[in-house]
Amino acid sequence: MKLATYKDGSRDGQLVVVSRDLGQAHYASGIANRLQQVLDDWNYLSPQLQDLYNALNSGHARHAFPFDPRQCMAPLPRAYQWVGSVAYGSHAELVYPATEASGVAGGSADPLLYQGASDALAGPCDAIACASEELGVDFEAQLAVVSSDLPAGCPADRALEGIRLVMLANAVSLRALSPAEQARGFGLVGSKPATAFSPVAVTPDELGEAWTKGRLQLTLHSTWNGRKVGLCDAGADMTHPFGKLLAHLCRTRPVRAGSIVGSGAVSNQGVTTKGGTDWPKGYNCIAEKRAMETLQDGKPSTDYLRWGDTIRIEMKGRDGHSIFGAIEQEVVAPAGRDA
Amino acid sequence: MKLATYKDGSRDGQLVVVSRDLGQAHYASGIANRLQQVLDDWNYLSPQLQDLYNALNSGHARHAFPFDPRQCMAPLPRAYQWVGSVAYGSHAELVYPATEASGVAGGSADPLLYQGASDALAGPCDAIACASEELGVDFEAQLAVVSSDLPAGCPADRALEGIRLVMLANAVSLRALSPAEQARGFGLVGSKPATAFSPVAVTPDELGEAWTKGRLQLTLHSTWNGRKVGLCDAGADMTHPFGKLLAHLCRTRPVRAGSIVGSGAVSNQGVTTKGGTDWPKGYNCIAEKRAMETLQDGKPSTDYLRWGDTIRIEMKGRDGHSIFGAIEQEVVAPAGRDA
Repeated sequence: MKLATYKDGSRDGQLVVVSRDLGQAHYASGIANRLQQVLDDWNYLSPQLQDLYNALNSGHARHAFPFDPRQCMAPLPRAYQWVGSVAYGSHAELVYPATEASGVAGGSADPLLYQGASDALAGPCDAIACASEELGVDFEAQLAVVSSDLPAGCPADRALEGIRLVMLANAVSLRALSPAEQARGFGLVGSKPATAFSPVAVTPDELGEAWTKGRLQLTLHSTWNGRKVGLCDAGADMTHPFGKLLAHLCRTRPVRAGSIVGSGAVSNQGVTTKGGTDWPKGYNCIAEKRAMETLQDGKPSTDYLRWGDTIRIEMKGRDGHSIFGAIEQEVVAPAGRDA
Repeated sequence: MKLATYKDGSRDGQLVVVSRDLGQAHYASGIANRLQQVLDDWNYLSPQLQDLYNALNSGHARHAFPFDPRQCMAPLPRAYQWVGSVAYGSHAELVYPATEASGVAGGSADPLLYQGASDALAGPCDAIACASEELGVDFEAQLAVVSSDLPAGCPADRALEGIRLVMLANAVSLRALSPAEQARGFGLVGSKPATAFSPVAVTPDELGEAWTKGRLQLTLHSTWNGRKVGLCDAGADMTHPFGKLLAHLCRTRPVRAGSIVGSGAVSNQGVTTKGGTDWPKGYNCIAEKRAMETLQDGKPSTDYLRWGDTIRIEMKGRDGHSIFGAIEQEVVAPAGRDA
């Protein structure tokens, strides 16, 4: 099934069930008002939501209304945990060369996870407000999963079974701040403002055969100011699948329901020929594009995002239809300031 | 006023108001069931809790019962944000010498913050379960504050006014895992299992004149297996007061109500005489003790915590009474395993 959270002026919004084709929606009130409630009590509440989803898809839900992604908050507008990762080895090699982080490219190395902020997650059409264009504002198009309760020491296969929902995410980064934060060894705080999520979160069964062992074998589309810049295969080069990411998170502690884990920028390996290396499928963050340019031309030529720039992130199923709806964000100056 | 969360089998527990002397408690039901609700709507709900607190202190609350810290969860059993810090320069100098992190000792440097896990925070008497004694289990006795909503770019003086509650915390660390995590630059994940909090959270007015500009001028008592090991002054050597820590957290993004920020291990500067340097007030984490031993004797001689070890953390007001109640935790093997 497909779930979304509608804005209602409250901090957590209102849970809605969305039809498979993203055309219709229905408030879940009477079952649950908030998505976290459902995650807290999944076995009891999710079958009731599934019944509503089935009715909605067959045109029999009595109070259905047209689904509008612009009314969406993040499926979880605030969460008890958001953990980012670098699950694609080629992303690590491009953006963190010659550091210990690049070791993630070897599938036998530990996955690289980081704790992120989850007190205010952004909706799919929320603006990216940044005080200065000099902060190196970057997008990072990726997949994310929402977990059930998992015990400490949970193995990867069991963690994979505990994935309740899959979403798209845009983990916005301020690249001008990250090197200094990383040098101190305590991770990313100021360099990671609000991460945005797709209009809907979907249960893994919606992904059919494209969801294989914690990898999603579909193309992620990233568009910058109307121009397609990324058409990467999300499955092919994912070094650490989601089960392994979750198991690593559970290494020393339990994980509670509603924890979100992101994949890091979806990335494909470059293709090396006699003429050099090329990345025909493009990129899902500008830091990668700049690294490609540096490898090819000795220096980066693409600037980071500017006020007024737009980013669109979407994924289509094998039937050609949008699965999660699109993340569509504009970079803006803070309110009260001219862009 | 003083607030606590009683275990009731649910994920978020039941909010109780606790008398100033920690002798009596009263369920807050009818006002709010959960502390996060109060933080979400502070101006409306906190005066009602204050009335109940006043009645409780004067012996006029009709359904009061004896307060039992062993029934407590963390005041916020799960939170939307937990951010640790290294607010005491002497802690940075001892534990992170010769790294960029030690720069925090200079008050003009940026405070050092890190995102922590907040999906499962531990109660004051919860066991510290660890799979192996070889993980370097350490305690870290510290202060923590709970914030209101703060806008991006919020200055330190305004952030200070936004502090709703103050608590004690034990940010348990697995020292055997942290160096490798820090070397990768993405912060602490596996090396930071659940942080524990004091039985009660108190509003800053409970601290009287000891609360000065975001520093708490009182002694933090840490006891290891019944032996006092730390009697540090929490105010004197706090390089970055809480207002500054919160302002740094707001540097590039808003902070939402219920975010918790910790001070890092409370630490006092060593005293240097002709005979060398000594730390007469002791230590609030074993990593510091081992660093002191290394400076004095060339190598550490104190081991990290073992199964069966106990840690007690408490702070008394100028009247000699416990302010927050005590954190009292035992290190144990995971359930089903012999210690």
